[in-house]
Amino acid sequence: VEGFNFSTELSVRFAETDAQGVAHNANYLIWFEVARIEYLARYAGGYKSIQESGFEALTTESHVRYLAPIHFDDRLTIHTRCHDVRGARFRYEYVVERAGRIVADGWTQHAVVDRETMRPTRVPGFFAEAVASAERPGAG
Amino acid sequence: VEGFNFSTELSVRFAETDAQGVAHNANYLIWFEVARIEYLARYAGGYKSIQESGFEALTTESHVRYLAPIHFDDRLTIHTRCHDVRGARFRYEYVVERAGRIVADGWTQHAVVDRETMRPTRVPGFFAEAVASAERPGAG
Amino acid sequence: VEGFNFSTELSVRFAETDAQGVAHNANYLIWFEVARIEYLARYAGGYKSIQESGFEALTTESHVRYLAPIHFDDRLTIHTRCHDVRGARFRYEYVVERAGRIVADGWTQHAVVDRETMRPTRVPGFFAEAVASAERPGAG
Amino acid sequence: VEGFNFSTELSVRFAETDAQGVAHNANYLIWFEVARIEYLARYAGGYKSIQESGFEALTTESHVRYLAPIHFDDRLTIHTRCHDVRGARFRYEYVVERAGRIVADGWTQHAVVDRETMRPTRVPGFFAEAVASAERPGAG
Repeated sequence: VEGFNFSTELSVRFAETDAQGVAHNANYLIWFEVARIEYLARYAGGYKSIQESGFEALTTESHVRYLAPIHFDDRLTIHTRCHDVRGARFRYEYVVERAGRIVADGWTQHAVVDRETMRPTRVPGFFAEAVASAERPGAG
Repeated sequence: VEGFNFSTELSVRFAETDAQGVAHNANYLIWFEVARIEYLARYAGGYKSIQESGFEALTTESHVRYLAPIHFDDRLTIHTRCHDVRGARFRYEYVVERAGRIVADGWTQHAVVDRETMRPTRVPGFFAEAVASAERPGAG
Repeated sequence: VEGFNFSTELSVRFAETDAQGVAHNANYLIWFEVARIEYLARYAGGYKSIQESGFEALTTESHVRYLAPIHFDDRLTIHTRCHDVRGARFRYEYVVERAGRIVADGWTQHAVVDRETMRPTRVPGFFAEAVASAERPGAG
Repeated sequence: VEGFNFSTELSVRFAETDAQGVAHNANYLIWFEVARIEYLARYAGGYKSIQESGFEALTTESHVRYLAPIHFDDRLTIHTRCHDVRGARFRYEYVVERAGRIVADGWTQHAVVDRETMRPTRVPGFFAEAVASAERPGAG
């Protein structure tokens, strides 16, 4: 998908389906998180390195568009990018692709807080730099 | 909460927490669904009556704002309303309150499909009427 | 159910179903936990009071028998008892009833640890006494 | 692990943790299912081929031993074998390994039913043969 340098793959688990025979809508947020965490692992030393630096990243908003039903065992590619890093905030965007077709998309908004005080704090420099480098056109 | 005639209550399950010590962001969509289903049971004969009428309601979009951390065993009130019923579509809005304070809100967009063909179909009359009646100012 | 002084009720959530059209097998452990936590709230000051006393209760073993399919919106009664409190260990037993019929049962085994060291420690006296009192024949 | 010809790997998702900072006990049953489904895909044409043959496999019993805490992002190997195929029943056994150490084990019991009648029916021949072949000492 154009504009995305990173993607991760996963297969839909049987436990993620519901009695409509499709993946339940809440699981998309879990897949977004899986993708986000792999992104952090690839570019920014991992979620644990953020925590160990004394920060915590909170999810403050989420949005999903369910464009086509997703079924058990479907192989999904989650295209992921981070952008709009400013102050204490950053945003991830996701496009979910199955066999070349976009079946969902969405975004999550995040805030960095100090682990001790849980107060908003500027996105740490190492993270902002890692994102800038990862999101350069052509990187990935 | 003003403008909402219906609400349902639930307690946060331990299984719904994560290692940040708060309720995981995906569970809010499950709570919204619990509230939506109780709304349907109260006003429209229940989700099963929709299915038995030959319809299925799909979730096509979701949005959540996480305004304050929610913890294990918190007692939540989910204020819920349905509106904007038009054509094959309708929308639910939610406000999550804890001890008089709003800690989250969001909405979900839905489409009615024919259970056989899975094609969009006009919201059934009994449902549109039930919603109109439920959402009259002062009903509830 | 004979031999059980405590029970709690819940309705099966749509998100707990799977593409077989029944409640997914992993959710039974979540329902057991919901029941266990309500038992603790009723008799022993709640799970939080255990934690605040400096203890943590770990689940060390679980067993479930799925006796009949459970469906969306089924109203379940989870009969729950705690017994076999000895040393650092205690066990909960569960019987799941729907409309007068037993549809599942199971047990979970637990160990008390010190929250600081995470090493097994004797079940605290207040908890052992609360359980003994709750499980007297005829209590409840 | 000796006696197991098949294994699958997965990483613990953040959404699978709870406020004790460890993977929640119900998720082990989901991991077992992930492993079972990959086993079926490798040896028996996949779960879908069982369904398309007119059968459904139900979980009738589960057992888990939690031997050591499992944390976010832990890389787990789920060793899996199927045995004791008789009549309408079969059993899977699981050993969960992390960095060379066994951190959990368990088993699940299953029954094959006819998809139409939901009545128990003999394990289909192609499945029994696939399991016998997969479980020969040294296969895998």
